[in-house]
Amino acid sequence: MSTGTVYGLGLGPGDPDLMSVRADRLLRQARHVAYFRKAGRSGQARGIVDGLIPEGATELPMEYPVTTEIPLSDPGYNAALSAFYADCVTRLTALTDAGEDVVVLCEGDPFFYGSFMHLHSRLTGTVPVVVVPGITGMSGAWTATGQPVTWGDDVLTVLMGTLPEDELARRMADSNALVVMKIGRNIEKITRALHSAERYDDAWLIEYATMDAQKATPLREAGTGVTPYFSIVVVHGQGRRP
Amino acid sequence: MSTGTVYGLGLGPGDPDLMSVRADRLLRQARHVAYFRKAGRSGQARGIVDGLIPEGATELPMEYPVTTEIPLSDPGYNAALSAFYADCVTRLTALTDAGEDVVVLCEGDPFFYGSFMHLHSRLTGTVPVVVVPGITGMSGAWTATGQPVTWGDDVLTVLMGTLPEDELARRMADSNALVVMKIGRNIEKITRALHSAERYDDAWLIEYATMDAQKATPLREAGTGVTPYFSIVVVHGQGRRP
Repeated sequence: MSTGTVYGLGLGPGDPDLMSVRADRLLRQARHVAYFRKAGRSGQARGIVDGLIPEGATELPMEYPVTTEIPLSDPGYNAALSAFYADCVTRLTALTDAGEDVVVLCEGDPFFYGSFMHLHSRLTGTVPVVVVPGITGMSGAWTATGQPVTWGDDVLTVLMGTLPEDELARRMADSNALVVMKIGRNIEKITRALHSAERYDDAWLIEYATMDAQKATPLREAGTGVTPYFSIVVVHGQGRRP
Repeated sequence: MSTGTVYGLGLGPGDPDLMSVRADRLLRQARHVAYFRKAGRSGQARGIVDGLIPEGATELPMEYPVTTEIPLSDPGYNAALSAFYADCVTRLTALTDAGEDVVVLCEGDPFFYGSFMHLHSRLTGTVPVVVVPGITGMSGAWTATGQPVTWGDDVLTVLMGTLPEDELARRMADSNALVVMKIGRNIEKITRALHSAERYDDAWLIEYATMDAQKATPLREAGTGVTPYFSIVVVHGQGRRP
């Protein structure tokens, strides 16, 4: 009996119609479908494929032991996550050892700031792993603004909202186009950094890109409420255009 | 009679299986398919969809009047391109005025360094335009390396190989993860900049990502020959990983 394969399936930004033809086909043929979710939630990735998982397929929810309850800097955070990923790998390899393929659902693109990477690094060399790239959340976000994000020789910088404020501000001032991800409770810090960098007036906030609840608004009109973790800030480049 | 719509269709990095379900469907239903190409060539975007254009659909090749024959800095370059895009718009609106929808093929993602943006800016406000995001060429490229490009709080910088060497080097040294596009005849300059920034040993060169001819090699093993214009250099981030 041959070993099964783990497929890291990029689902794209949220609209199931934006999954790749290959991801769509692999999902519709899947017998085992695994996905991350926060404990007690149905799961963002699982939500994208609602109605697409074949009848009879088994589902393997992988529930994060912590998300934002412990600060990233706490050694307990790394320890808890590390044990969690090891446990996920045990569950996946139990299936692949039995010759079964498993599809792991990944929001956006699996190799771009995704949790799947932590499985990939632990599976590689042991189990065949195939990664299917996806449309990134940021592509969904800038498309939602109705404006191109980069022109000509524009430099694009992708920043996590979890970075320190002064580093955010420095990099925001030193790039043509900007994408800021992991917004959520960092929105006030990000807003201050955009002001320092004199980019605030050109920033857009995109929530739920490509999904039914999609909302793309210039940041100055968006208000100061807490935004979803998966919202994205975009500042468009203004480079060369004939 | 209502006005037709122009669809900017992100085709993804090259493998037609990586088109989105929506792009695939729109293409298979298309009656008019437009695409850019270099004069005398069959066209990169057109190549991706070979065999997918419905029988009886009309094709509208849009041939660049110049590509690399005139330097970008020459005012003649902008003038020639500007007249060209205006002419493309005339051809597209002749169809939409007659109530016909037109699909414009776009490699990668239409709003990410794409030629379609120059049509989009000229059509918006006049003709309904719908943009379908795609998997970027850079996603195809880092997937081809078999390694995630960004972890944790990594900063990703996307640079065009057309930038000056000192600016390339400065930004290469100041980012965790790197993507360099528009390589082609800039490969020697890019290589020198990677050396200055002490990133050369970690750089990968990816040619023809996701296509049959795909080749992903550490740059130091890749040799110094001229690479295709659409090749991509990737330096992976090494950020936080539990």
